[in-house]
Amino acid sequence: MTRWKLTLEYDGSGFCGWQRQDGQPSVQQAVEEAITSFCKEEVRLHVAGRTDAGVHAFAQVAHADIAKPTQPHIVRDALNFYLKTKPVVIVKAEAMGDDFHARFSATGRAYLYRVIHRRAPPVLDAGRAYHIGRALDVEVMRECASLLVGTHDFSTFRAADCQSKSAIKTLSEARIEAVGEEIHFHFAARSFLYHQVRNMVGSVLMTGTGQWSPQDFVKAFATRDRTVGGPTAPAHALYFVRADYR
Amino acid sequence: MTRWKLTLEYDGSGFCGWQRQDGQPSVQQAVEEAITSFCKEEVRLHVAGRTDAGVHAFAQVAHADIAKPTQPHIVRDALNFYLKTKPVVIVKAEAMGDDFHARFSATGRAYLYRVIHRRAPPVLDAGRAYHIGRALDVEVMRECASLLVGTHDFSTFRAADCQSKSAIKTLSEARIEAVGEEIHFHFAARSFLYHQVRNMVGSVLMTGTGQWSPQDFVKAFATRDRTVGGPTAPAHALYFVRADYR
Repeated sequence: MTRWKLTLEYDGSGFCGWQRQDGQPSVQQAVEEAITSFCKEEVRLHVAGRTDAGVHAFAQVAHADIAKPTQPHIVRDALNFYLKTKPVVIVKAEAMGDDFHARFSATGRAYLYRVIHRRAPPVLDAGRAYHIGRALDVEVMRECASLLVGTHDFSTFRAADCQSKSAIKTLSEARIEAVGEEIHFHFAARSFLYHQVRNMVGSVLMTGTGQWSPQDFVKAFATRDRTVGGPTAPAHALYFVRADYR
Repeated sequence: MTRWKLTLEYDGSGFCGWQRQDGQPSVQQAVEEAITSFCKEEVRLHVAGRTDAGVHAFAQVAHADIAKPTQPHIVRDALNFYLKTKPVVIVKAEAMGDDFHARFSATGRAYLYRVIHRRAPPVLDAGRAYHIGRALDVEVMRECASLLVGTHDFSTFRAADCQSKSAIKTLSEARIEAVGEEIHFHFAARSFLYHQVRNMVGSVLMTGTGQWSPQDFVKAFATRDRTVGGPTAPAHALYFVRADYR
């Protein structure tokens, strides 16, 4: 039995999210079925970051145990053969020790949120970024995003159905980068609350459009109440970028 | 009557190319019809670079004469309203003097060709870049591409049905850039022959895979005969990047 670490790229628009759901196409089901087609074994995938419907991944990490003796390039190419018609690929397959766990061994997760900031809607990046046609004050957003770094109670940005025991999380990065017509939000933490990234982006954008002052943002953050937070930013602009392991 | 310069972004996979063709969706027809819906005038668009079926544009340039008195932001927003269901948008509209001509005033054109160089096929960039899973020698390709810069007879890279009077063109740029897993080919010239960029890329790639030595490339280029050139690289990875005007 070998534990295989799989690095996955997927287009979230083709899936109901990572997790299996009856009658809907999930990333988990697509990859588990490809593994079964390859090795004729029933397997269960564990993932670093369960993503929602519509959320993309450049390099999601999952693991599964496979009895069939094989090699990394064969696992990668064979699974990609079985995944041919699905919008998910195995970028890399690596044999790991039994103590590796895609979820529990991860010491960090990183997300990117892409905003296209111009008047004309995007065509080449349609479904890949959030289009904002109105004026945005990037400096004010940068200032507010920087307040998120560190250890805080993130209840204001926590979805109602979040299953995490505590709302206290530590953000190591909350950075805004202007890239041509795009605004990139970079977030990194050991772990995130459910919808935390999209809720943080939604609130920071409220300050960019001027609907909120920076003081409104500070107050909403301090109130620790989701009902005073900004809207949840759309899923189709969010990317799971990487999981870190020691 | 005002001459309007329009800067366009489009996804070439939704079109039979720039030029009108009976019964097929062209970029030209989509934009001309949007203009007619807006100003109730029959117009004819002139374009900087006629692109083939499948070729994308970040910033194509076209012009049309419109009698209706209006303003730049209204032209842009109104045309985008009528183009809503089509994979083309007006990024910018500018009022120009009568001596401006999108095609004849252009002093330069630039193209980007995107290769994704890794084993796994792309998912997020499917239909947006050419996937090459085998080994590529980027340094050899760089060396061969540099030979294309300057004034040469490009008959080896000229499509059979090219209507240009002469095969002699001057390339100001033929540069290869490695960007993570991608290889970008940058080309710039006053003008190009029909299929020239895709034919040059196809031949340079022959040296990258080792099917051709650099000497084979030099010989093919010097022979001035399309039948000894490499294959035409696929259209879906080519982007019209910009047109230059004095």
